[in-house]
Amino acid sequence: MSVTAALKANQEAIAGDAGNARVVFSTQGSLVGPTHVQLISRGHAIDVDEPDVLAGGDQFANPVEYALASLASCQAITYRFWAAKLGIELDSVEVAVEGDLDLHGFFGLDETTRAGFKGVRIDITPIGPEPSARYRELADAVDAHCPVLDLFSNPTPVERRLAVAA
Amino acid sequence: MSVTAALKANQEAIAGDAGNARVVFSTQGSLVGPTHVQLISRGHAIDVDEPDVLAGGDQFANPVEYALASLASCQAITYRFWAAKLGIELDSVEVAVEGDLDLHGFFGLDETTRAGFKGVRIDITPIGPEPSARYRELADAVDAHCPVLDLFSNPTPVERRLAVAA
Repeated sequence: MSVTAALKANQEAIAGDAGNARVVFSTQGSLVGPTHVQLISRGHAIDVDEPDVLAGGDQFANPVEYALASLASCQAITYRFWAAKLGIELDSVEVAVEGDLDLHGFFGLDETTRAGFKGVRIDITPIGPEPSARYRELADAVDAHCPVLDLFSNPTPVERRLAVAA
Repeated sequence: MSVTAALKANQEAIAGDAGNARVVFSTQGSLVGPTHVQLISRGHAIDVDEPDVLAGGDQFANPVEYALASLASCQAITYRFWAAKLGIELDSVEVAVEGDLDLHGFFGLDETTRAGFKGVRIDITPIGPEPSARYRELADAVDAHCPVLDLFSNPTPVERRLAVAA
């Protein structure tokens, strides 16, 4: 369905029953090589690897690159939805995301260095015929409603359940 | 190179010059359809889409599924590295991750609902010949050093740079 139809269908479904808004996404798989991880999400294969310097075969992007791709794509798609919601014409979106990692954290070489990104930068270019003020308005609406930007910006409760023999 | 060789090579390179630990990962691309985003990271293509109910063609996993895949794969690979570092035999790792999203946030239907995951669960099964106590020790070391678990658990500073005409 179109973006406008999807906005309407979801709004009506959620107005009818707030429980329709609560969805669970998932992925599952295993480590099948030194660093090759094969995963599947809703029937879609996702393959992950590391470069040679991190003991991998460099067949696929690595986990932190997928994290950045998740943010970049979520931004672009949220531009698409919120442009339709706000009545702003949008032809396309170009996006680049980069993140700074300090491997002292991952390798445990300095326990005061965080393992994850110290900082992330998003460069985003909405493309279309509207005056720039409308794209600024759109950018602010997107940043308030983008699921993966929220994931990066705020803490998320994570429960880890380890399966080993008792 | 092997995992053990990679641990040694990285440790030596970082001991020689702490700046070698600071690396920048990136992704870049654009929105090429209603919700299809084509990205590239270090030569590796990453394609993202949404299901029909979110106006997409359902060709690929969606952004939040890639976020979960990023976490699942980072956990599995961090098990591999820390098992080698701690001298724990590890044959494989099975992993499943799920996350709870409330679409009131994304659609702006309730501004008190966060756009991102309200909670995430990791089910992880290390496979190998060691006594379970060693895998519990490994799990704790992994959770202290996994870059994407850190990203999920803690706030990360994100700078957004919008390119529009002045």
